[in-house]
Amino acid sequence: MMDDAMLAALREAVGAEQVADSRTARVTHAFDATQRRFLPDVVVYPNSTEEVAAIVRLAAERRVPVLPRGAGSGFSGGALPVQGGIVVVLTRMNRILEIDSRNLLAVVQPGVVTATLQDAVEAEGLFYPPDPASKAFSTLGGNIAECAGGPRCVKYGVTRDYVLGLTVVTPTGRVIRTGGRVVKNVVGYDLTRLFVGSEGTLGIVTEIILRLLPKPAARRTMLATFDSMGNAATAVSTIIRGKIIPATLEFMDASAIDCVRGVKDIALPPACQALLIIEVDGEEAQLGPELERICELLRPLGLLEATIAGNAAEAEAIWRVRRSVSPSLRQLGPDKFNEDIVVPRAQVPEMIRRLAEISARYGVPIINFGHAGDGNIHVNVMVDLGLPGMQARVDGALEDIFRNTVALGGAISGEHGIGMAKKPYIGLNLDADTLAVMRAVKQALDPLGIMNPGKIFPDDPENLRS
Amino acid sequence: MMDDAMLAALREAVGAEQVADSRTARVTHAFDATQRRFLPDVVVYPNSTEEVAAIVRLAAERRVPVLPRGAGSGFSGGALPVQGGIVVVLTRMNRILEIDSRNLLAVVQPGVVTATLQDAVEAEGLFYPPDPASKAFSTLGGNIAECAGGPRCVKYGVTRDYVLGLTVVTPTGRVIRTGGRVVKNVVGYDLTRLFVGSEGTLGIVTEIILRLLPKPAARRTMLATFDSMGNAATAVSTIIRGKIIPATLEFMDASAIDCVRGVKDIALPPACQALLIIEVDGEEAQLGPELERICELLRPLGLLEATIAGNAAEAEAIWRVRRSVSPSLRQLGPDKFNEDIVVPRAQVPEMIRRLAEISARYGVPIINFGHAGDGNIHVNVMVDLGLPGMQARVDGALEDIFRNTVALGGAISGEHGIGMAKKPYIGLNLDADTLAVMRAVKQALDPLGIMNPGKIFPDDPENLRS
Repeated sequence: MMDDAMLAALREAVGAEQVADSRTARVTHAFDATQRRFLPDVVVYPNSTEEVAAIVRLAAERRVPVLPRGAGSGFSGGALPVQGGIVVVLTRMNRILEIDSRNLLAVVQPGVVTATLQDAVEAEGLFYPPDPASKAFSTLGGNIAECAGGPRCVKYGVTRDYVLGLTVVTPTGRVIRTGGRVVKNVVGYDLTRLFVGSEGTLGIVTEIILRLLPKPAARRTMLATFDSMGNAATAVSTIIRGKIIPATLEFMDASAIDCVRGVKDIALPPACQALLIIEVDGEEAQLGPELERICELLRPLGLLEATIAGNAAEAEAIWRVRRSVSPSLRQLGPDKFNEDIVVPRAQVPEMIRRLAEISARYGVPIINFGHAGDGNIHVNVMVDLGLPGMQARVDGALEDIFRNTVALGGAISGEHGIGMAKKPYIGLNLDADTLAVMRAVKQALDPLGIMNPGKIFPDDPENLRS
Repeated sequence: MMDDAMLAALREAVGAEQVADSRTARVTHAFDATQRRFLPDVVVYPNSTEEVAAIVRLAAERRVPVLPRGAGSGFSGGALPVQGGIVVVLTRMNRILEIDSRNLLAVVQPGVVTATLQDAVEAEGLFYPPDPASKAFSTLGGNIAECAGGPRCVKYGVTRDYVLGLTVVTPTGRVIRTGGRVVKNVVGYDLTRLFVGSEGTLGIVTEIILRLLPKPAARRTMLATFDSMGNAATAVSTIIRGKIIPATLEFMDASAIDCVRGVKDIALPPACQALLIIEVDGEEAQLGPELERICELLRPLGLLEATIAGNAAEAEAIWRVRRSVSPSLRQLGPDKFNEDIVVPRAQVPEMIRRLAEISARYGVPIINFGHAGDGNIHVNVMVDLGLPGMQARVDGALEDIFRNTVALGGAISGEHGIGMAKKPYIGLNLDADTLAVMRAVKQALDPLGIMNPGKIFPDDPENLRS
């Protein structure tokens, strides 16, 4: 399908130097943060909305798959060209077009790296809260495609809550503008939020209007250790019911704590079976009293120790506990299945209990940490797929995890999206009629089925697990 | 189209006592808060999701218009049966099914009155922030249909920001469930927010999962008067840049202040050309210092007087200034055109200036107040339509208002929706390709075009104003 005429047409449309079909270019755009690879036919690096529209129109004429790509840091395979086609790399469209401090908004291109925008707005006393772990390299376009989250969501919400408007090239190559420079807007359907989290299957975002906040004046960090996950989870609810919404409320369960027990300079109480990293932000003067109130609330709840960082170095030492988990995971197995389930906040301890059962049932180590404030558990299944029968055990464990997540009222993905990694399981979470409405929306916007095909929806409705 | 067989089928489906086709029943469901009337053919009062689905399936079989209705308090004609058909009144589905204080959420039926839910959750120390002016009688289903706002949105956001999940009867009579009991959720497309603000044109919401917050411990109110609208608007930006986000930031311009000059017990400085009503909420101890800081910030900005309420009665006296505007409007003309435009916050003074010009140009009084924090201006055009040529002057003024709103980067509706009142103007705000995508979504979900027909989209694309 990618014949010489198509390549020539692409070169004609956007300039030959922006089109690459070398094996090197194709291989370097074949992967993402999952461990799968699919070669695209060609890689194109547009510089403008008009160029993206020209590419998509060519793809539509020839019925060639076309898919947007940012940094390729996604965990669900959203950027993988599973049916080949044209990968539209948006990293050259990386300009911050405007920071409007009077109206608290920024206008950016999709290739801007998340942390780059954060640094730029913070230099002006402003704040863009969403902070996915990949923020040092992930792009805002990718964040929008997946509706990225991060630790600060318990207080500040997710990417969706900061997107005011979008310019989108639709799958038929038209350019539309959704939303605008205002927070309140009820003119027609909320297409902005339809595109946020649509994983590049409904169009290619080429310009973004983002809402900003004033930067909090100060931030304080504390580490609280507990004798049980149940007590740590009760602590989370108690803090929030106590009218304090921390900026972050991260947890590690016993499995994650075991991972860091041997790490140098990390000393946790022997009885510690769960811990919370709590950050509060706001006016400097109110943070000390706020942390003291949190300590008071926690003391009756099986609190072992509470450590409040007195300075940035001490805060960094607290965060090192959390960051030491991931590097130590590989000792448990070379292959990681990183899931991001979410359950109602109060169900976190029950889900952790069930995860331990599943770990035992399938004989696979499962390490859990994540965002306790919003019930978002990062479940890491660590295995060696080289061992005979291991893939089947992993598949069984994952399906069991997702079934239990849904049974507790949760969702099988809170931040990463469905992509191709979770599409066999989406039927566990959504009934057939709800999926049918989503398919109808996809069909309405992408009648040719060329925009990032093979994602979200199960390939074969008859094989849908439900 | 509403023959005896159809009526019999409806009675069969939901019970005869829930179906009314008397003239009285039809007339009392022919209106909303606009001044227009359209008789429905029949009024049905379902008690459950299943009954709603049965009604919609019958409507689909017979190609009869069907439309949901809450309290009928909308300002855009969204609940008007402009093509007759079946009005589905949801006021009997008015149960609060669950208030889950551990997970900070509520599950409700669509007929619950907004204030009823607010009172119920506040009794448990919780908080549902969206507060449309109609909250004493508007229903949550209607709030969701229009994505209702209110004064508290500057800090707390709009209805959309509190809807976690929905049960919806689609226009083909299927029951789907979107979202869920979790804040983070990226499983498939964000249908929840597609339905929020869709004005009853994509389906009938029959159950709602709402996010709650802890109730703020205390609230304080102040009144600040200014020598110009420009200074009042600068004050708004200055407060927010000063890292204080008040719970409400209401303004009145000179036109609205003139309305209340003669009202008993309201004394405003003679030089007062604009005022702000500022409410802060949170921990009791921090509110005093916060209001003092606001005063400091405002003093260099043409502040005439600042009055901080010392108790509830004084706060009530401040709010009486704002509430006295509407009753006095009718002295200016018996017919009110109440528009809810929104512009980027910093453009409020320029828009107010242009509104004064438009008022002079068409010879119609225009009174403005609203939510300064989010640029949402309630524009009240007061006329006597009995005067010859007045309708044409009003039409001219409204179109001029909407054109200027869009030119300043704004939206023609921030809270009320498009309905039928603003559909001739939607083309001013959305380009043809963007509207075409919205039409495609409508067509995908409602292929028969029976769900609340005649709303949002201009009847004749050729006559689209743009």
